[in-house]
Amino acid sequence: MVDPDEVNALAQLMTWKTAVADLPYGGAKGGIGCSPSELSMSELERLTRVFTQKIHDLIGTHTDIPAPDMGTNAQTMAWIFDEYSKFHGHSPAVVTGKPIDLGGSLGRDAATGRGVTYATEALLAEYGKSISGSTVVIQGFGNVGSWAAQLIHARGGKVIAIGDVTGSIRNKAGIDIPALMKHRNEGGHLKDFHGAEVMDSSELLVHECDVLIPCALGGVLNRENAPDVKAKFIIEAANHPTDPEADEILTKKGVIVLPDIYANAGGVIVSYFEWVQNIQGFMWDEQKVNMELHKYMNSAFQHIKAMCRSHDCNLRMGAFTLGVNRVARATLLRGWEA
Amino acid sequence: MVDPDEVNALAQLMTWKTAVADLPYGGAKGGIGCSPSELSMSELERLTRVFTQKIHDLIGTHTDIPAPDMGTNAQTMAWIFDEYSKFHGHSPAVVTGKPIDLGGSLGRDAATGRGVTYATEALLAEYGKSISGSTVVIQGFGNVGSWAAQLIHARGGKVIAIGDVTGSIRNKAGIDIPALMKHRNEGGHLKDFHGAEVMDSSELLVHECDVLIPCALGGVLNRENAPDVKAKFIIEAANHPTDPEADEILTKKGVIVLPDIYANAGGVIVSYFEWVQNIQGFMWDEQKVNMELHKYMNSAFQHIKAMCRSHDCNLRMGAFTLGVNRVARATLLRGWEA
Amino acid sequence: MVDPDEVNALAQLMTWKTAVADLPYGGAKGGIGCSPSELSMSELERLTRVFTQKIHDLIGTHTDIPAPDMGTNAQTMAWIFDEYSKFHGHSPAVVTGKPIDLGGSLGRDAATGRGVTYATEALLAEYGKSISGSTVVIQGFGNVGSWAAQLIHARGGKVIAIGDVTGSIRNKAGIDIPALMKHRNEGGHLKDFHGAEVMDSSELLVHECDVLIPCALGGVLNRENAPDVKAKFIIEAANHPTDPEADEILTKKGVIVLPDIYANAGGVIVSYFEWVQNIQGFMWDEQKVNMELHKYMNSAFQHIKAMCRSHDCNLRMGAFTLGVNRVARATLLRGWEA
Amino acid sequence: MVDPDEVNALAQLMTWKTAVADLPYGGAKGGIGCSPSELSMSELERLTRVFTQKIHDLIGTHTDIPAPDMGTNAQTMAWIFDEYSKFHGHSPAVVTGKPIDLGGSLGRDAATGRGVTYATEALLAEYGKSISGSTVVIQGFGNVGSWAAQLIHARGGKVIAIGDVTGSIRNKAGIDIPALMKHRNEGGHLKDFHGAEVMDSSELLVHECDVLIPCALGGVLNRENAPDVKAKFIIEAANHPTDPEADEILTKKGVIVLPDIYANAGGVIVSYFEWVQNIQGFMWDEQKVNMELHKYMNSAFQHIKAMCRSHDCNLRMGAFTLGVNRVARATLLRGWEA
Amino acid sequence: MVDPDEVNALAQLMTWKTAVADLPYGGAKGGIGCSPSELSMSELERLTRVFTQKIHDLIGTHTDIPAPDMGTNAQTMAWIFDEYSKFHGHSPAVVTGKPIDLGGSLGRDAATGRGVTYATEALLAEYGKSISGSTVVIQGFGNVGSWAAQLIHARGGKVIAIGDVTGSIRNKAGIDIPALMKHRNEGGHLKDFHGAEVMDSSELLVHECDVLIPCALGGVLNRENAPDVKAKFIIEAANHPTDPEADEILTKKGVIVLPDIYANAGGVIVSYFEWVQNIQGFMWDEQKVNMELHKYMNSAFQHIKAMCRSHDCNLRMGAFTLGVNRVARATLLRGWEA
Amino acid sequence: MVDPDEVNALAQLMTWKTAVADLPYGGAKGGIGCSPSELSMSELERLTRVFTQKIHDLIGTHTDIPAPDMGTNAQTMAWIFDEYSKFHGHSPAVVTGKPIDLGGSLGRDAATGRGVTYATEALLAEYGKSISGSTVVIQGFGNVGSWAAQLIHARGGKVIAIGDVTGSIRNKAGIDIPALMKHRNEGGHLKDFHGAEVMDSSELLVHECDVLIPCALGGVLNRENAPDVKAKFIIEAANHPTDPEADEILTKKGVIVLPDIYANAGGVIVSYFEWVQNIQGFMWDEQKVNMELHKYMNSAFQHIKAMCRSHDCNLRMGAFTLGVNRVARATLLRGWEA
Repeated sequence: MVDPDEVNALAQLMTWKTAVADLPYGGAKGGIGCSPSELSMSELERLTRVFTQKIHDLIGTHTDIPAPDMGTNAQTMAWIFDEYSKFHGHSPAVVTGKPIDLGGSLGRDAATGRGVTYATEALLAEYGKSISGSTVVIQGFGNVGSWAAQLIHARGGKVIAIGDVTGSIRNKAGIDIPALMKHRNEGGHLKDFHGAEVMDSSELLVHECDVLIPCALGGVLNRENAPDVKAKFIIEAANHPTDPEADEILTKKGVIVLPDIYANAGGVIVSYFEWVQNIQGFMWDEQKVNMELHKYMNSAFQHIKAMCRSHDCNLRMGAFTLGVNRVARATLLRGWEA
Repeated sequence: MVDPDEVNALAQLMTWKTAVADLPYGGAKGGIGCSPSELSMSELERLTRVFTQKIHDLIGTHTDIPAPDMGTNAQTMAWIFDEYSKFHGHSPAVVTGKPIDLGGSLGRDAATGRGVTYATEALLAEYGKSISGSTVVIQGFGNVGSWAAQLIHARGGKVIAIGDVTGSIRNKAGIDIPALMKHRNEGGHLKDFHGAEVMDSSELLVHECDVLIPCALGGVLNRENAPDVKAKFIIEAANHPTDPEADEILTKKGVIVLPDIYANAGGVIVSYFEWVQNIQGFMWDEQKVNMELHKYMNSAFQHIKAMCRSHDCNLRMGAFTLGVNRVARATLLRGWEA
Repeated sequence: MVDPDEVNALAQLMTWKTAVADLPYGGAKGGIGCSPSELSMSELERLTRVFTQKIHDLIGTHTDIPAPDMGTNAQTMAWIFDEYSKFHGHSPAVVTGKPIDLGGSLGRDAATGRGVTYATEALLAEYGKSISGSTVVIQGFGNVGSWAAQLIHARGGKVIAIGDVTGSIRNKAGIDIPALMKHRNEGGHLKDFHGAEVMDSSELLVHECDVLIPCALGGVLNRENAPDVKAKFIIEAANHPTDPEADEILTKKGVIVLPDIYANAGGVIVSYFEWVQNIQGFMWDEQKVNMELHKYMNSAFQHIKAMCRSHDCNLRMGAFTLGVNRVARATLLRGWEA
Repeated sequence: MVDPDEVNALAQLMTWKTAVADLPYGGAKGGIGCSPSELSMSELERLTRVFTQKIHDLIGTHTDIPAPDMGTNAQTMAWIFDEYSKFHGHSPAVVTGKPIDLGGSLGRDAATGRGVTYATEALLAEYGKSISGSTVVIQGFGNVGSWAAQLIHARGGKVIAIGDVTGSIRNKAGIDIPALMKHRNEGGHLKDFHGAEVMDSSELLVHECDVLIPCALGGVLNRENAPDVKAKFIIEAANHPTDPEADEILTKKGVIVLPDIYANAGGVIVSYFEWVQNIQGFMWDEQKVNMELHKYMNSAFQHIKAMCRSHDCNLRMGAFTLGVNRVARATLLRGWEA
Repeated sequence: MVDPDEVNALAQLMTWKTAVADLPYGGAKGGIGCSPSELSMSELERLTRVFTQKIHDLIGTHTDIPAPDMGTNAQTMAWIFDEYSKFHGHSPAVVTGKPIDLGGSLGRDAATGRGVTYATEALLAEYGKSISGSTVVIQGFGNVGSWAAQLIHARGGKVIAIGDVTGSIRNKAGIDIPALMKHRNEGGHLKDFHGAEVMDSSELLVHECDVLIPCALGGVLNRENAPDVKAKFIIEAANHPTDPEADEILTKKGVIVLPDIYANAGGVIVSYFEWVQNIQGFMWDEQKVNMELHKYMNSAFQHIKAMCRSHDCNLRMGAFTLGVNRVARATLLRGWEA
Repeated sequence: MVDPDEVNALAQLMTWKTAVADLPYGGAKGGIGCSPSELSMSELERLTRVFTQKIHDLIGTHTDIPAPDMGTNAQTMAWIFDEYSKFHGHSPAVVTGKPIDLGGSLGRDAATGRGVTYATEALLAEYGKSISGSTVVIQGFGNVGSWAAQLIHARGGKVIAIGDVTGSIRNKAGIDIPALMKHRNEGGHLKDFHGAEVMDSSELLVHECDVLIPCALGGVLNRENAPDVKAKFIIEAANHPTDPEADEILTKKGVIVLPDIYANAGGVIVSYFEWVQNIQGFMWDEQKVNMELHKYMNSAFQHIKAMCRSHDCNLRMGAFTLGVNRVARATLLRGWEA
């Protein structure tokens, strides 16, 4: 059920991502081969506790810090924290993504979408532009997409088209995102929203716009649609939305692609902030969380740009070079004579 | 000598108080049945060290953090810290209320009185009022009362009557608190202060005023005097100053009572800040301590008000509901399958 | 090779220095009797690792925190950190002076020179003066001297003479320090710098100026040259630049000497900040480091001045009294009944 | 359900018993207020595991070593061992009375009955007698009584009467114990055994015999029947079979009573041997277990006799004096300056 | 280089083997993919130490205890012990097969051969025979074969044929084994020994004899030669000398095969004794080692026989059933509710 | 007061002594510079406890095990054990020489004297002699001398002269040692004993005899009296009774000297046995202690003899060579690549 090679690849990618963001973290993945949706709450809790008993020596506040991924959530983290603490004493910092009542960070919910927004700002500024006045198309209206939409709207960006699995809509004058959020929170589908017209979902990624933000699945930009992309900037909020062929096509067309390894790092950055707050025994207010997130996203962008300049490469290559270099330098400094 | 049931009740109350203040703490009490005043310094030190040897496995930086209460003080905490550190290494965070030279926090001395002042400000603001221009009566001129008096005076409040075990005084135009502090620090009694006239101490609590702040003993407001209370707001700076019957009478009269569980939490909040500073290895200046205390007192007040609104209850009930709910939620999230 | 008595004296001095700066640190020294320059990198690494294996129980995040001194550097600290972490888990806070890639602090490189500058500002302000417009002579153009020169220049101070082992130069109008830095970074010697004239190095310390800053060796001011010193203020950036006889002569002449125990504490203060950042799991930007350094240097100066006033003594005696008093008070509070 | 005072009394008694047997053990009792018979195996297991999680810091190989008592058994010990080992690593020595497959000792099943037999031998030898040829009456045919009966029979003793809750039987010529065991193991009641005649159970304790061994309940010998006891020796295999009044009566009559604190110590002695084997990582064969049990029982008897001689007291007082003296001497030697 | 599946199979086999011998051990295998013969002593030492640093948390006195296997030896164990002890303190029990000077057991060298001899005695006794007077053929004259030959000779057995990679010899009257040992220790090959005639090695296994002991490689008895085997008893001193087809043929012919899982367990049994001696801090003399080895081999044989009787199976099946049953019973007793 | 060089020399000598006896121990010495006789019991106890607090990390069951030496005794060890156990849990094995009530070994009191006797037996046997019938002179009648005298007497040896600080006595027919013990235990001096005549103490060492056993001070045999020694065998029960010059003279005369490093090792051997019993949680009876002591003394003697043969040297050199070789071999095997 779980493919070890894929797990390894994801763990490695995480290593470069945390290095790009300059977090004192590495990358690792682990899990149980089961279908959470087929288990009762009690079964899930007991499975999580036994799993924690087996790995309690391998994770730890200064060793490995689990965070939720597909199939796990804040409640799972709460159980791991509780079980782990039986062995090692009260240890909220052993997991991140905890419920706020148990030491989770404010602002973590919005973190990836907010990071995408900060990344977009930084990229546009590099080209003398700003979100205010830019036209934006967003694929995905889940946690990441809806937060990105709200924050871009609040900064004066015009979200002219947006889509999710239930359909896509557009409005040349810009969609009223707060109204759309209200509509959705009341259970409505995108296509039933009155403030926009329905459009073909397959047109979304090739829609005329300044900024395209794929927030959904991997591989959505490929050799089929890449030639038709009209956006000037692509912000990879999803993981791997651009496949290698599309990447080449877009680069040749002069489309600027902000790679996922940087663009969607907001989540892990705020996970790190949660750990910091737990380590320090002192929680931050949301304003402080967002301000620090902004600093980290901005600083990473400047370092990527510096890499692009010194290595004469595009943003994706610049980001990877930054991450790998940081890990390599630290490894060398720690020394070979083990 | 020590009544276990009373100790338990106090420990539990402490749990709700720290929950109301949103500190990552619980509540516990413990002690030795002895009369400290009958022991020499050397006996006190040796008794404290042996006691620490017996409980060193039960307290700890992330387990239970003692702080001084009746019969113990900063020196006692210093001995516990020193003895505990023999077993677990340098551990200043294992106790709070330490001498400043050994990692105690600036601003802890004034913390309860300052917290009372912030609480009063928050309550008055809710009613469109402010300390500036309000008339205030204070019962008690010890650590809490004198700090409250000074801070209220500094904010433009008129302290028109004040009393302690040596007597009570009043001045319609407002007592000059800095002058009174000087008088007292030079050894003078309240009744000998030239800037006010002596009054009957039994009149203090029923004196005409906007705000009444009992800072001394428990149970001072009871069915005898409650009907005659003329204050619009009572700030419970003492523990349990209002007995249940008085509480009912005052509520019926429309007097607003700010409960002790919230009003006098400034002390434990700054104890928590001391622990945070020790954990972080970095001490705050006094300004930072006061600013954070203000944030915590204010935030707790807003949460209590929200509880009052959603549960349609008075402030005392709102505060308890807040505390109990927070503990219950955290308990549920940690899980039942132990 | 290593003189135990000298090591002890240095360790003790370190205790007073950290007490003056109000750091929660003591003082200790240790080392290996060898000539690092005669060893290969691999030999140095293996020697460092075996040394760490032998002392890993004696050092520790909350016990003793090594930092580089003569013959060791950031790389040595990296090896100690790596080897120590094998025994005690990931422990960046066990050493300071680490490479920035492994948790070293920003601003540590410039810390001593910057501290010297802050100390000079504080001292001059006490006399109604400021760096801006003052004439300054600096002995030493290594790490400390060059940073002091740059920072003084940036504040409008006139560095009118400067010297190192390669020679000395002067310029009445003030040397252009940024130009001199460029000259030196390109490999040039002081005496070849075009913006100043060569002078006799023996004249440097007795040159006419407001502020004299010896940043090189100990004992450079002695009974030979002390009578001829013309500076009004001496800032001891080096360790022990003034020998006891010179000290007496200068005092009699009314020259104000800012003692090394305070003046060059910037390095250990930022070492402490590095430890704090590691303990907190969160790195500061350089601006924050410098701001905190400024606070610590300023606060220490005010405390020294208060000691001078209450004990009617000069700055050197005031600084020692401050340090010894703080250690004595803490020792008493921790207690005698061990 | 559980009476704390009774628990304390039992714990204290255990302290004297282990001291009499010269084991390096103290005494303690603890438990959960529940009815094991009303719980399923799964509930019992989970209850035992959670209980172990709560006390795992209080028990331990060199701290407190639980063993089964009423309501718990070898399976319970296996669960405690398993759960404890999750926290502290493989620790078979943390409990005794384990199943043999998990490190339980051979010979533990028979240990109390065998100890009773060794005690009887030692006592009789003191009076120039031996089991061989003596007439014996046994009350109780459970684990203790049946083992005592078999071992006494094997040594040539004549068990002339025996009884349990189902009835009592007698045979002047001595009952064929191996035949009786076979009868019982096949499900038969005592009264249906062909090799003896049924008798009134109330006659059992006052039956003519050399040695009377009560192996069942406490308080069976009291002022009602004590005057009629005809045995010359009473071996207290049960706990407290003789109440204080009976004790006085029997002493006056010249009946020799071997006290329970010594007579039934065989069980805890072999529990100790189990711990020793676990500590040593090496199991003993049954012959070795029995030989060591013999040594310990004999040695304790000699020490009790010595106490009786030096303090001129009976065996019960001698045994208590021995136990209390040993604890007192050790306490004094460890020292008062805690 | 290392086949994980084969490693797993060997680890599992080890689990059954230690269970058959009733040792409190499981089974595990691990290693490094390298060619020890191509590495210098210094490289081997450093490789071993780094390996130990990586696994020091996974092995341990009460967790997993490495012992030498192919490519490692007593020196390797010494290095592991030394490196491990840096982390966990002096821990000789963490490895077995150490040099005697560092806590290795006397008698370990001969242990497998001696165990084979004890196993042979036990088997023959079951059939009313004894080594004395029996004719024996041995394949292999390395550590196991030569010790078996010597011990069988000393018990009056006639070793009538023996072979190794250099050739095979025979002597109907029985080979003088002490003389042969002397010959070999002086560097002589079997075929040059004067006390016997050279024979064809392929005839060895089918030579007429009472007892055949293959002490060399696996799979030497197969469908080719099995039908011609003339021995009445085969003692599997090597691992897997009989392949499944041969096993079936031999069983049908009525040849009694004593399985390797039991027959060659002498080595691991004395490894266990070494651990026991280290745990107890007290070394045994060789006589004690051999006596205990005899007890363990004999007891295991009796338990296997009991299994064969109750399950009506041959010795191989009886041994496996014994091992698996013991592990299963222990697992059940420890419990399912993890 | 304490000479570090002498302490070092003693520690080193201890290393060779334990190596000769084949104990898994090294050698170390430590102490406090004070006069125990000038301190009260309470002061001694508190001094010992604070000392233990300072070194509790350096000693330990598997690290360094203190035992009493000059100025300390069983009570001191009890305090160390008690204080140490506060930090590390119940740890009787951390010291030896404890009171028997707290885990001390039976037979330790007599151990050195008994070891001397076993050594004498082994030496005489080598020369075809035995204690029975030999004439013996003993210098010293303290713990070692009186035990040696009793045990030699019991084996049929004739103690013809004996002396201590109060005087010396002789009796050609052999002194009645049990009578002399009784005399002394009743407070009598040697010279008042009726069964012997008083002699000049200076004649003692040069008295005619087979075996001379100096049990008192170092350096008593020197170039003054060595030429006059008439004994054939000297057993060094004291430390260093023979100075180097005397050693040479005696060797030339053909006197056989059994060196102290071996001859008086009985004490440390039984200290080791005490540790073993504590480690194993199981105490030995006195017979077992004496039997094992005999084994260790005998085995060491055989190894020394083997060294003398292979290195063609006298017993002193043989003993040192044995000790140093064992330490060297173990050091080499543990490895150089630290």
